[in-house]
Amino acid sequence: MSTLPYRSALIIGAGPGISGALTRRLRAENIPVVIAARNVDKLSALVDETGAIALPVDASDAGEIEALFAETDARIGAPEIVIYNASGRVRGPIAELDAAEVGKALAVTALGAFYAVQQAARRMIPAAKGAILLTGATAGVKGFALSAPFAMGKFALRGLAQSAARELMPKGIHVAHFVIDGGVRAAHRADPADAPDSTLDPDAIAQSYIDVLRQHRSAWTSEIELRPWVEKF
Amino acid sequence: MSTLPYRSALIIGAGPGISGALTRRLRAENIPVVIAARNVDKLSALVDETGAIALPVDASDAGEIEALFAETDARIGAPEIVIYNASGRVRGPIAELDAAEVGKALAVTALGAFYAVQQAARRMIPAAKGAILLTGATAGVKGFALSAPFAMGKFALRGLAQSAARELMPKGIHVAHFVIDGGVRAAHRADPADAPDSTLDPDAIAQSYIDVLRQHRSAWTSEIELRPWVEKF
Amino acid sequence: MSTLPYRSALIIGAGPGISGALTRRLRAENIPVVIAARNVDKLSALVDETGAIALPVDASDAGEIEALFAETDARIGAPEIVIYNASGRVRGPIAELDAAEVGKALAVTALGAFYAVQQAARRMIPAAKGAILLTGATAGVKGFALSAPFAMGKFALRGLAQSAARELMPKGIHVAHFVIDGGVRAAHRADPADAPDSTLDPDAIAQSYIDVLRQHRSAWTSEIELRPWVEKF
Amino acid sequence: MSTLPYRSALIIGAGPGISGALTRRLRAENIPVVIAARNVDKLSALVDETGAIALPVDASDAGEIEALFAETDARIGAPEIVIYNASGRVRGPIAELDAAEVGKALAVTALGAFYAVQQAARRMIPAAKGAILLTGATAGVKGFALSAPFAMGKFALRGLAQSAARELMPKGIHVAHFVIDGGVRAAHRADPADAPDSTLDPDAIAQSYIDVLRQHRSAWTSEIELRPWVEKF
Repeated sequence: MSTLPYRSALIIGAGPGISGALTRRLRAENIPVVIAARNVDKLSALVDETGAIALPVDASDAGEIEALFAETDARIGAPEIVIYNASGRVRGPIAELDAAEVGKALAVTALGAFYAVQQAARRMIPAAKGAILLTGATAGVKGFALSAPFAMGKFALRGLAQSAARELMPKGIHVAHFVIDGGVRAAHRADPADAPDSTLDPDAIAQSYIDVLRQHRSAWTSEIELRPWVEKF
Repeated sequence: MSTLPYRSALIIGAGPGISGALTRRLRAENIPVVIAARNVDKLSALVDETGAIALPVDASDAGEIEALFAETDARIGAPEIVIYNASGRVRGPIAELDAAEVGKALAVTALGAFYAVQQAARRMIPAAKGAILLTGATAGVKGFALSAPFAMGKFALRGLAQSAARELMPKGIHVAHFVIDGGVRAAHRADPADAPDSTLDPDAIAQSYIDVLRQHRSAWTSEIELRPWVEKF
Repeated sequence: MSTLPYRSALIIGAGPGISGALTRRLRAENIPVVIAARNVDKLSALVDETGAIALPVDASDAGEIEALFAETDARIGAPEIVIYNASGRVRGPIAELDAAEVGKALAVTALGAFYAVQQAARRMIPAAKGAILLTGATAGVKGFALSAPFAMGKFALRGLAQSAARELMPKGIHVAHFVIDGGVRAAHRADPADAPDSTLDPDAIAQSYIDVLRQHRSAWTSEIELRPWVEKF
Repeated sequence: MSTLPYRSALIIGAGPGISGALTRRLRAENIPVVIAARNVDKLSALVDETGAIALPVDASDAGEIEALFAETDARIGAPEIVIYNASGRVRGPIAELDAAEVGKALAVTALGAFYAVQQAARRMIPAAKGAILLTGATAGVKGFALSAPFAMGKFALRGLAQSAARELMPKGIHVAHFVIDGGVRAAHRADPADAPDSTLDPDAIAQSYIDVLRQHRSAWTSEIELRPWVEKF
């Protein structure tokens, strides 16, 4: 039995880090999980380990997101938890960036999140139940030099999170934005001995997502920051 | 002679309100102005009045923005002032919005601003001179319910403004983001007698843009709020 | 045995609401707790129920805070968790407020928090361990009309939280600021039947404090918002 | 004749930098100016140069602020412009700061500003006219390590500014908060040749204050950032 009030989960933009940790935690609660990513090959170990279902998706495509939700409905029921982790990042001087790549990055980071929130809302509003968790970054709060496309995407995601929280929370849907401030620890890579826990442990991140999912509706979090103890900010 | 340190201006997303007032003020300084909008027909009175040059542009199209700058170069020289006023707004419940329209709105409000900032940067960096003014809104600071696409666009614009300011200001390019908080007064429409000055007068907005353009580089504004005295916020 | 990595707690500004709920949760973890308030009489039921130690303090007095920590050291050991809940609130038009009361409110809300953070830091830095949780409010993020003293106090508290987090987190001390957005449910008072969970349940708030106390240092929260699902914001 | 809509000015916390530049600009508009500071001796050159009136004040004392306004009333009429520049700054590790000095710093930076805003409000509300300008700092937006008292004071000032703006702007009183981000150039000290204009020129700052004072009430600024072009932020 699950200690969470939700029975199904869809994670979009799944990679081995945050999404992998989340999948393990949700599966440990016996919640069926669909994990979607552009390239599902890299998810095979996670699927083998957890029994999650991997589905391919280009998150920047509204039609593919719609189809992903429909397939998720068919496989595990309408998702009661939707987590959006996808992001596109292009770095460089503004004058030198490729315009098409910037558009693509914004579409993956922000527009795809809108498509996902929309599909989630359509399912959750009638049930007056559900949780939408959006993975942001410090770039969504402060626009850094040489990273304009990422700033645009993560700012837009935060704007979406705020607007969705104001619209959907009174309809019983928990919307939360996570400001991940720091590098996420790659699998099988320990932090340097002289800088322990200087990158975010995916399991520690996942724990905070689970904490938020367990919150009582009288005290819901709509935004939370997470950063390593030694992170400059 | 101009009291401003710039010799040419390009205003994108020009309508009769803020852009009209800006055009008049810049022309009064004898600065040649190109005003660009999707539909130039509505600019004909402004062109007749001020001698500005109107050019058509779909701001959401990178190629059209590039062509607009090239044509501006040819007509008045590389623009030393670039003002981006275009925005796309779609309102409604998240579940009911048209996904394609949301993408289009984000492209007009934010992506087009990136294209314009990029073209501006390419011209201004070699000259170590120029000003880029981005017209934002309260929606870029707070995401309101039933207005997710506008929140996304204006948040993204603010992220772009911050990133561009951090990258370009040390190169001699003034980047400023204006948070317009309130309705802008429509031409030929006075405020109600019992609520004088309850909408932003375009001329008053334009004055603050001019003030910012005149600032000394030792004390540049990168963000400024403007709102009517009686506006709730 | 405790599931928390801390062995002693001091709660300042304790009333029956948030502080009562926190005391119960910490005592349930077998952590000794000192609860301090201006008037300890109102804490007698909580003391009887939980075995916590109640001590009187005027949080706006640096000497009293210093003495409180010394007494806490003697009774339960140096506190490894310090929670500051005290606040002073004066409402009214700016022109009509009593200047002395405003100073007193600021002292209770913000200055007392500094005194407490200082005493905590002196104990926690040598141990490279500890948690400081500061209870803020929406008034610390947005200054409302007719509530200038509370805005000043809660803004100052947030400034303190940010500065302390940047200084103390790299020394192993977890500093977190909670933005409580909404009314906290009074004991023995249910929400109206037509507005269930429209006030923050103190137990739900306490749960999030406990969650934060359990976080791994690679992913510490330094700020988190909590609000009822139906709260306007 | 003045180009400003105000006829008298009081500057509190006046030193030779920003306040000196403001005094010169206001006097050039033929506006009578009272400049108040703890130590008026350092203002004698400014008085000689501009004809401003210097009055002593401990801004952290409510009674002294009240007396200062009364004396100002008598000397130049009720001030229609009130500018608060005073601030107290104590730096150092939280554990090592002197508690009494922290209280004093907060009183000078924030509490004195409240006293001044209150006195200003009492005079300006009946006239439905006036401007209150509060000089803030980046420390009011971001709390830096080793600077907790300054963070507390400048955050509190910003909270006051927001609350006062929401209450007083609809009564015809312009309230604006200036985020000064960077060092202010000391008199007779040029910037290094390899870092021109890397500190804020007081005259450039004063120009922006004058611009804000001239704004039309349909488009008032309530917050504006000013920083040198090369400032890291």
